[in-house]
Amino acid sequence: MKLIIGDKNYSSWSMRPWLLLKHFGIPFEEVLIHLYTPDTKSEILAHAPASPGKVPTLIDEEGAATWDSLAIAETLAERFTQHALWPRSAAARSHARSVSAEMHSGFGELRSNMWMNIRASFPGRNATPAVLADIARIEAIWTGCLETYGGPFLFGEFSIADAMYAPVTMRFNTWQPPLSEAASAYVRRITDLPAVKAWIDDALRETHAIPYQDVCP
Amino acid sequence: MKLIIGDKNYSSWSMRPWLLLKHFGIPFEEVLIHLYTPDTKSEILAHAPASPGKVPTLIDEEGAATWDSLAIAETLAERFTQHALWPRSAAARSHARSVSAEMHSGFGELRSNMWMNIRASFPGRNATPAVLADIARIEAIWTGCLETYGGPFLFGEFSIADAMYAPVTMRFNTWQPPLSEAASAYVRRITDLPAVKAWIDDALRETHAIPYQDVCP
Ligand SMILES: N[C@@H](CCC(=O)N[C@@H](CS)C(=O)NCC(=O)O)C(=O)O
Ligand SMILES: N[C@@H](CCC(=O)N[C@@H](CS)C(=O)NCC(=O)O)C(=O)O
Repeated sequence: MKLIIGDKNYSSWSMRPWLLLKHFGIPFEEVLIHLYTPDTKSEILAHAPASPGKVPTLIDEEGAATWDSLAIAETLAERFTQHALWPRSAAARSHARSVSAEMHSGFGELRSNMWMNIRASFPGRNATPAVLADIARIEAIWTGCLETYGGPFLFGEFSIADAMYAPVTMRFNTWQPPLSEAASAYVRRITDLPAVKAWIDDALRETHAIPYQDVCP
Repeated sequence: MKLIIGDKNYSSWSMRPWLLLKHFGIPFEEVLIHLYTPDTKSEILAHAPASPGKVPTLIDEEGAATWDSLAIAETLAERFTQHALWPRSAAARSHARSVSAEMHSGFGELRSNMWMNIRASFPGRNATPAVLADIARIEAIWTGCLETYGGPFLFGEFSIADAMYAPVTMRFNTWQPPLSEAASAYVRRITDLPAVKAWIDDALRETHAIPYQDVCP
C-alpha cells in the first residue's frame, strides 16, 4: 500500500491518513510529492489518473486509488477491522463521524487564516472574530467529547476523529490563539503522540518552502 | 427516526440523506425547518444540542443526533445493510467514497455561483471560467464512473454517490450550463427518479423564499 502525501510542514490533509497508518502500525510506503511545483499535479495523476490530482491519495496493492482524507480513513477502517479506527460503539461512531465530517467540510475561516506551517511561530496573529468563532466551535466539540467519553482522546482511544483534528492542533501550536485549559491539554496530548512527533520531526527537517498564500487550507 | 431538513427548494445538503431514506424505503419522520429565519439555529439545536445547528441532522430512536450529510449517509449504510447504500464491491466502494468526499469538500465555485433553487430558471448565467472548471471535473467523474460500472447510475444501481451529486443535477436544471450528452442523460435519469421527483414536487409547492445570497452552497 502506498500513501501519496505532500510536504509534511504544510500538508494538513496528508497528515490525517498518515497518522492513522503510523499510529495503528499498518505497513505502508510513503511517497512524498512537493506541493505547488509545476509538476505536482502531473506527478499525483501519474499514480491516480481518475483522481483530482490532490494529496492524500492511497494506492492499494492492485493499484486502485482512493483519494481524499476522509474516504481514505473510511476505507482503512473497513479494511483493518482488527484496529478500532472508529470507536467500536455504534453511538460513539456516529458521533465521531459527525465531528469528522464537520471538520472535513467546515472551519474555512480557521483553515485559510491560520494555515498549517509546523516550522513557523506566529503567536497572537490573525485571530479575527470569524476565526475565533471557528475556534470556539472546535473547543465546544473537544470539550463535549472529552467529557462524554472520558478522554484522553476525543472518543477515548485515538481514532479517526483525532486524526481529522490533528492538523488543527498544529495550527494552534503555531498561532497560539487563546484556548481553554481543557483544549490546551488536548493539544499537548496530540502533539506528544509518537506518530505525531514523528510527523513533526520530518516536517522540521524539510527544506522545500512554499509561499503562505499557496498553503493548502 | 427523524430527519431534520431545510426548505426543499434550497437545501442542497438536506436533499442527500432524504433521497437515500426515500429511495431505499427506510421509514422516517421528516421535520422541516425553514432556513435563514431568526429561529432556524435554535430550532435545530433544540433537537440536537451538541450539533452545529445545521441541516441535515438525523435523530435516532434513542434521541442521538448525527449531523452532516456524509456522516448520516455512512451511518445509514452501516445500519441498513439489507440495502446497498454503498456499492457491494470493496473496490467500487472506495471509489464511491472518493467521489463522494470530493463533492463534500469541493466544488466551491459551482456551489456558490450556481446555488440550488429548484423553482428558478437562470439559463446561461454565472458560467464563469472557475465554475466551468468545476463542471468539467464533475463531467469527468460522471463519465468515468458510468463507463467503468456500466450505469445507469454512477456505480450501477443508485447509491450514496448519486445522492451526493443529486443537488448538482438540480443546479444544472436551473442554470443549464453546456454539458456533454452523457452528462445530460445522467441529469435526466436522476431528475426522473421517483424519490427525486417527490422532492422536486414538494419544493415546487413551498412558499418560503430566501434571498439568494443566503442560499446554502
Ligand atoms: N478534501 C481533500 C483536500 C485535499 C487537498 O486540498 N490537498 C491539497 C494539499 S493539502 C492539494 O493536493 N493541493 C494541490 C492542488 O490542489 O493542486 C482531502 O480531504 O483530502
Ligand atoms: N457539511 C454540511 C453542510 C450543512 C449546511 O451547511 N447546511 C445549511 C443548509 S443547506 C445550514 O444548515 N445552514 C444554516 C446555518 O448555517 O445556520 C453537510 O454536509 O450536512
